[in-house]
Amino acid sequence: MIRRLVLDIMKPHDPDVLVMTKRLSDISGVDGATTKLVEMDEQVQETRVTIEGDDLDLEQIQLVVEDLGGSIHSIDEVSCGDEVVEDLWVDN
Amino acid sequence: MIRRLVLDIMKPHDPDVLVMTKRLSDISGVDGATTKLVEMDEQVQETRVTIEGDDLDLEQIQLVVEDLGGSIHSIDEVSCGDEVVEDLWVDN
Amino acid sequence: MIRRLVLDIMKPHDPDVLVMTKRLSDISGVDGATTKLVEMDEQVQETRVTIEGDDLDLEQIQLVVEDLGGSIHSIDEVSCGDEVVEDLWVDN
Amino acid sequence: MIRRLVLDIMKPHDPDVLVMTKRLSDISGVDGATTKLVEMDEQVQETRVTIEGDDLDLEQIQLVVEDLGGSIHSIDEVSCGDEVVEDLWVDN
Amino acid sequence: MIRRLVLDIMKPHDPDVLVMTKRLSDISGVDGATTKLVEMDEQVQETRVTIEGDDLDLEQIQLVVEDLGGSIHSIDEVSCGDEVVEDLWVDN
Amino acid sequence: MIRRLVLDIMKPHDPDVLVMTKRLSDISGVDGATTKLVEMDEQVQETRVTIEGDDLDLEQIQLVVEDLGGSIHSIDEVSCGDEVVEDLWVDN
Amino acid sequence: MIRRLVLDIMKPHDPDVLVMTKRLSDISGVDGATTKLVEMDEQVQETRVTIEGDDLDLEQIQLVVEDLGGSIHSIDEVSCGDEVVEDLWVDN
Repeated sequence: MIRRLVLDIMKPHDPDVLVMTKRLSDISGVDGATTKLVEMDEQVQETRVTIEGDDLDLEQIQLVVEDLGGSIHSIDEVSCGDEVVEDLWVDN
Repeated sequence: MIRRLVLDIMKPHDPDVLVMTKRLSDISGVDGATTKLVEMDEQVQETRVTIEGDDLDLEQIQLVVEDLGGSIHSIDEVSCGDEVVEDLWVDN
Repeated sequence: MIRRLVLDIMKPHDPDVLVMTKRLSDISGVDGATTKLVEMDEQVQETRVTIEGDDLDLEQIQLVVEDLGGSIHSIDEVSCGDEVVEDLWVDN
Repeated sequence: MIRRLVLDIMKPHDPDVLVMTKRLSDISGVDGATTKLVEMDEQVQETRVTIEGDDLDLEQIQLVVEDLGGSIHSIDEVSCGDEVVEDLWVDN
Repeated sequence: MIRRLVLDIMKPHDPDVLVMTKRLSDISGVDGATTKLVEMDEQVQETRVTIEGDDLDLEQIQLVVEDLGGSIHSIDEVSCGDEVVEDLWVDN
Repeated sequence: MIRRLVLDIMKPHDPDVLVMTKRLSDISGVDGATTKLVEMDEQVQETRVTIEGDDLDLEQIQLVVEDLGGSIHSIDEVSCGDEVVEDLWVDN
Repeated sequence: MIRRLVLDIMKPHDPDVLVMTKRLSDISGVDGATTKLVEMDEQVQETRVTIEGDDLDLEQIQLVVEDLGGSIHSIDEVSCGDEVVEDLWVDN
């Protein structure tokens, strides 16, 4: 059971981060999604997306992201199990 | 359902940030809005505006901002879903 | 409804920050005010004043500040609405 | 009503910070006082003194400080009103 | 009784961190596991994996990691006993 | 009434910080004592000792420190009054 | 009564930190132990070990450490008394 995912997602400017975040939060099993803009140039936006739920389905998430013209660049964090283990460590 | 938005808004000095923040908090579905002044020169103010509510409507927000002579430069953060997912990550 | 204001206020040394903060906290609708000394030279003090209440009136605040020989240099933060939206972002 | 004061106090080594802090906490209306040593050379100690209470009287505080040979160099922070407004801003 | 483990694990890109974290959280006695991506090049991913439970079994954990083609590079943190002792110290 | 003291204490290596901290915590009126090693060379240890209680007696503390061959180099912090006033300020 | 100890322990790679931490947490009076890896070279591991309990016995701890081929390099922190006094100061 995947409980929490942090994804590094590259996407075009259009559709915007609102559309993507709404679509991700509508996936079955997702309690909520928060997207932060990391960087952008004229072509693409690099975003950091955090998704929480009871039983996340990465394939569904990937389908939504690709349907919007984006791609998952890396999985930066994942929490599985009966409880979400906190780890305050931050990469410097 | 959009629950939380962080916007980078460029605006003229007049009307001031109070007028803008009051107008944004009066939009239907908005629980509250907080504006921070990021930078200013003689012509414009760059502001960071955080808006929370149960079902935020970006188009309405955009209408208010443009009606006051401002423009949304970027959507820096957005949270959707049944719950607001916290992500403590800060861009350096 | 303005719930929280952070002001950058320039003032002469006399009257001191106590007098100003007491006068600001006595304005109707103000629950409390906290003033921090940011910088001072021989002539002026730059202060950061945070005011909280249920329905703050900037004009009244401005009258008090000017009556004491000071002036509001900028509005650095303002929160409006039914609830005070927290935003932990700090300008660097 | 002054609820909280942060003072920058210069004082001789003798009497020590204990005597000063005890005397300040004994003033009527004071709930407690905390003194931190900021710097010292052979002659003087620079201290940061935080005083909380329901209705602080700066004149009384000043009398105590001067009676011990010290002087208030600046008022760095002051909170007035029905509630103590928190402001996490730190001068850098 | 091992209650909490932080491991530095080197692994190939495939299978991905989801598969590894799920497999680790399925080990008997594990309450949850969180994996953070520390660094990656074309061949390997360096990950930081935090595992909590009531009675962790390092040998089982090692078997899972090696079965997926990875290896435990170092044990960075371990908590044993009736309660998990917190230590906020961070290596700089 | 002294409620909290932070002392900078210089001491020989022997007796060790355990002996000193135990002896300090055994003084009447002391609820607890925490000692941190700040620096050491071949001859001396510089320690930071925090002592809390209801009515601390510096003379007794000084007697214990000197009895163990140490000396109080400076009083870095002191809290007096009915309540311990918190001050989060840190010297840089 | 020693309630909390932070030790800087040098040890060979074998036995590993798990064995050491388990053995330390099994000592009578110990509620829990957390070991963090500070640094390692080919021969030794420098570890930071935090131990909490109601009445810690340093001699027993030392016996366990030495039995495993390690040695206590320094006592970095110790708390004694009826309550554990918190001190947030961090050595820089």
